Amino acid sequence: MSFHQLNRSFNPRSVAVVGASDTPPAWGHAYMYGCTRYGYQGRVYPVNPRREELFGLKCYPSLQAIPDSVDYVICCLAAAKAPDIISACHGKGVKMVHFIAMDFDQDITGETLRRARALGIRILGPNCLGLYNPGAGISFAYDFPRESGKVGLFLQSGGIPNQLVRYAAARGIRFSKVLSYGNGDDINEAELLEYFRDDPETEVIACYLEGARDGRRFFQALRETTVSKPVIVLKAGRSTAGARAAASHTAALSGSQSTWDSALKQANAVQVTTLEELTDMMVAFSFIPPLEGRGLGMIGGSGGRSVLSADAWGEAGFDIVTVPPNVTEEIKRQFPGDDYSWVKNPLDVSAIPLPDLLGGVETVVLQLMGGNPHVDLLAFNIAVEAPFEQEIWTSMLERQVSNALRMKGEVDKPLVMVLPLPAYGSEELDNWRWQVLSRQKTRLVTAHLPLFLSINQAATSVGRLARYWERRNSL
Amino acid sequence: MSFHQLNRSFNPRSVAVVGASDTPPAWGHAYMYGCTRYGYQGRVYPVNPRREELFGLKCYPSLQAIPDSVDYVICCLAAAKAPDIISACHGKGVKMVHFIAMDFDQDITGETLRRARALGIRILGPNCLGLYNPGAGISFAYDFPRESGKVGLFLQSGGIPNQLVRYAAARGIRFSKVLSYGNGDDINEAELLEYFRDDPETEVIACYLEGARDGRRFFQALRETTVSKPVIVLKAGRSTAGARAAASHTAALSGSQSTWDSALKQANAVQVTTLEELTDMMVAFSFIPPLEGRGLGMIGGSGGRSVLSADAWGEAGFDIVTVPPNVTEEIKRQFPGDDYSWVKNPLDVSAIPLPDLLGGVETVVLQLMGGNPHVDLLAFNIAVEAPFEQEIWTSMLERQVSNALRMKGEVDKPLVMVLPLPAYGSEELDNWRWQVLSRQKTRLVTAHLPLFLSINQAATSVGRLARYWERRNSL
Repeated sequence: MSFHQLNRSFNPRSVAVVGASDTPPAWGHAYMYGCTRYGYQGRVYPVNPRREELFGLKCYPSLQAIPDSVDYVICCLAAAKAPDIISACHGKGVKMVHFIAMDFDQDITGETLRRARALGIRILGPNCLGLYNPGAGISFAYDFPRESGKVGLFLQSGGIPNQLVRYAAARGIRFSKVLSYGNGDDINEAELLEYFRDDPETEVIACYLEGARDGRRFFQALRETTVSKPVIVLKAGRSTAGARAAASHTAALSGSQSTWDSALKQANAVQVTTLEELTDMMVAFSFIPPLEGRGLGMIGGSGGRSVLSADAWGEAGFDIVTVPPNVTEEIKRQFPGDDYSWVKNPLDVSAIPLPDLLGGVETVVLQLMGGNPHVDLLAFNIAVEAPFEQEIWTSMLERQVSNALRMKGEVDKPLVMVLPLPAYGSEELDNWRWQVLSRQKTRLVTAHLPLFLSINQAATSVGRLARYWERRNSL
Repeated sequence: MSFHQLNRSFNPRSVAVVGASDTPPAWGHAYMYGCTRYGYQGRVYPVNPRREELFGLKCYPSLQAIPDSVDYVICCLAAAKAPDIISACHGKGVKMVHFIAMDFDQDITGETLRRARALGIRILGPNCLGLYNPGAGISFAYDFPRESGKVGLFLQSGGIPNQLVRYAAARGIRFSKVLSYGNGDDINEAELLEYFRDDPETEVIACYLEGARDGRRFFQALRETTVSKPVIVLKAGRSTAGARAAASHTAALSGSQSTWDSALKQANAVQVTTLEELTDMMVAFSFIPPLEGRGLGMIGGSGGRSVLSADAWGEAGFDIVTVPPNVTEEIKRQFPGDDYSWVKNPLDVSAIPLPDLLGGVETVVLQLMGGNPHVDLLAFNIAVEAPFEQEIWTSMLERQVSNALRMKGEVDKPLVMVLPLPAYGSEELDNWRWQVLSRQKTRLVTAHLPLFLSINQAATSVGRLARYWERRNSL
C-alpha cells in the first residue's frame, strides 16, 4: 500500500509551486524554472498572491484558488508558513508536499506533520531538493538527463544530489527516481528503501545517509532488499566531527559507526565511504552482470600499468589466469612471428611487436581469454601512455575503443574498461590529446560499457560487486 | 662526484639519435620529433647510414662520422646492436647512452656494460623512455611543459611517465628532471635518489619502483634524503601477481612487501599505492608549506559535503577547530542579521542566509579562522552543488575562486582547495557548466594553489604531508 501511495506521489499529474517567483536565485524561481524547462508534461500552477502570471503561466493567489486538483505541492516558503500551507491543501487532492526550507524547529515540524496526517498528505523534507523522476518529467534541476534508468537513489542531503546526478550521468548512469529527502521527518530512509525494493523500474539502489530515523525498519528492509537488488550505502557522520556536522545538518543521529558497519555487512549492503566510490558502484551494478567467479583476463597497458593492475586486481581478490596454451597457439596462427614471450596476463602492450600491436593483437588475446572457462571477467586498460605523435596516438586510441565495442558484442564475459581522464582546465579543453580522450570516453559510455577512471577504482569496485553476488548466491 | 657526472649527463650540450627515422611510429622518429619540436637548444645529430638528411638536419652514417663531440646518445636500435654502439662512442666524449629497446638478454647487457665502463660512459635503461629535463630543453615527449619545477621524478617504467607527467602538469606540477630508467642496469634507483638528494633544483622527490637493484644503498640514501626533502615512493609489485608482472617487465625483484613497507616507514618516506595518490602527493609537497599542527578551519560546501569533509579530515587526524567567539563577533559586525547559528566549522554554505552568501561571507569566516592560533590549515571546498541557473552558478563559482586567490595572498596559513571535476566526454566539453569548472580550475592551478579532486584525496594527502613533517621535526 505504501508503495502505491508513494508511487502516485512520485508521479504527479499536476504540480503547484508555492512561493513561485521570477527572480533568481529564489527557490520559487529555481523550481518554476526546473518544472518548465526540464519538460514536465503535467499541469504546473505557480502560486503567489502578488503576481498575475509567471513563466507564461497563470499565477494563483493561493492553493485553494487553483480550479483543479493538485497532486504535488513544492513549498518554497520559510518554515513558519508550513502548517498553514498544509491546511490550504484541504480538498485539493494533494498527495505530497515538499518543503525546501531548513529553518524548521520542533514545534513547526510537529504541527506540520499533525495537519498533514489528518489530511492524508505525505511530507518530503524539509531541508532538501525533493523529487527527480525523469519518467514523470519532473526534476529539481532543469538540465538533468531526460532518460530514465535503473538506479534508484535517495539522499539525506540537498546539495549532494545536484553534484552526484551530474557526475554519475557523465559515466552513463541513469536513474529511475532520485529523492533528496533531507530531515526525513515523514518519508524517511526506511520507507524509501521499501519503495525502491518494490519499484519494478529500479534494479540498483544507492543512498547517502547521515543516520536512520527508524533503524530497525531500515535494516529489516535492507535485508529483504539485498536478496533481489544490490543496495549501495554511503553512511556519513562516521567520525566524531562528522557526526557533529550531521546533527547540525539534518538533525540526524549518526549512531555508532561500528554498529552501522556490522549491520550493513550482515545485510549484504555494499558500503562505500566517498561520493566517488558511490558513483563507481552505481557504474559497476548498472553495467556489469553478475560474476560467475574471480578469474580475470586483462590488457594491462604498458609494463608499469600492467604491474599496478596485477597488484590492484590481485589485492581485490581476483585470480589473474595464466594464458592457456590454446590461446598462444591461436595467436601464433593469426600473427606469424618469432617471439611470443609477450603473450601474458596481464598483457604488457609495450612488449608487443609494433606491427602486431597496430594490427590489434591485444584485443584478440583478450577475446580469446574470454573464451576460456576459467576466465569470468575481462579488464581492458586503454593504453593512453603510448609515446606517439598526434595521428598515431589518436588512431591507436580510436582502434582500442572500437575493438572494445566490438568485443562487447562478441564475448560472453563482462568487460570492464579503465580510461584515466586528466583534471580538465581550460587549456585541456583546447588540447587535441584530451579532446581525443573525451571523444573515446563518450563512445564507451554511450555503449554502456562500465568505465572506471583508474585501475584501483575498477578493481576495488568490481571486487565489491563480486562479493555482493557471492554472498547473495551463498544464501 | 657521482652527482656532477650525472648532472653533466642530464644537461647535454649535444645529442645524437642513433637509428633516427622520419617514419612514425618508429622510436627513431619519436626522439627526433621530441628533440626538434620540444625546443632543444643544443646540437642534434641524427645517425642513419641510409639517409642524407632528417628533420632538416644533416644525417650521419655513424657516431664516428659526427665531426664534433657528443654528450648524449639516444639509441633506438634493437638490443643486439648495443655493444657496438658503445664501442662507436670511443673518442666522442659521450657521457651517457640511453637504450630504449626491451630485448636485452644477460649476455648483451653484460657486454654493453663492460664496454661502457671501459670508456667511462653511463647507461640509462634499457627498456625506458630516458630523460626529460626542461631546464636543458630535452624531452622524450614534444608537448611536455617547457618550464622547470621543483619535483624530481624517476620511474622504473617507460609508459607511466608519459601519462603521469601530463596528468601532473594539469594539476600545476612542474619537474626539475624526470628519468625513466627501465631495467636500471647501470644508473639505478639508488644513484638517482642520491642525485636528486644533491640536486639544488629539486625540492620534492617522487619515484615509481618495481624493486631495488641495490636495496642497501637505496635505503641508506633514502634515510639521508628525507631529513631535507620529502620522498614519495610508489612501490609496485606488491602482490604475487604484481611481482610476477614486475619480473617480466623490468626483471625487477620486488622483494617482500612487508620488508619494503617497514623500511619505507622507518626512513620517513611517503608511501603511496596508486598513480593518483602519487600525483596528489606531488601536489601537496609542491604547494603546501610545512604544517605547524593539525588544527583545521574549513568551508565544507553544502550540508552533505560538510559532513563528508568532517569525516574525511577527522579520520586523517585533523582537529576541526571550534569557531572562536571573536570570529562570530566579527561576522556579526560585518554582516548584520538575526541568526548566526550557521557560523560553524566546517561551514555549511547552504545554511547561510542568501544575501550574506552572495556577499562572500563564507570566505570572510575562513579568513578569520586563519587568524586563530589554533588553526594551522584552511580547507576550501568549492561549492559546485548549488542548484542555481547558469548566470548565478557561474558567478558564484567565479567569486569563490576569486576569494580563494585573494585569501592566498592575505592569510598566513596554508590553503587547500577541493574542486571535483567530472569525467569529461565530448558532451561535457560543449557544456557551459563544465566549461566554467575548467576555467576556475585553471585559475586555481595557475595561482599555484594545491588543488585536489575530491574531499578524501585532499584529506588523505594532507594527512600524509603532516605526518612527514611531524616525523621529520621529531628527529
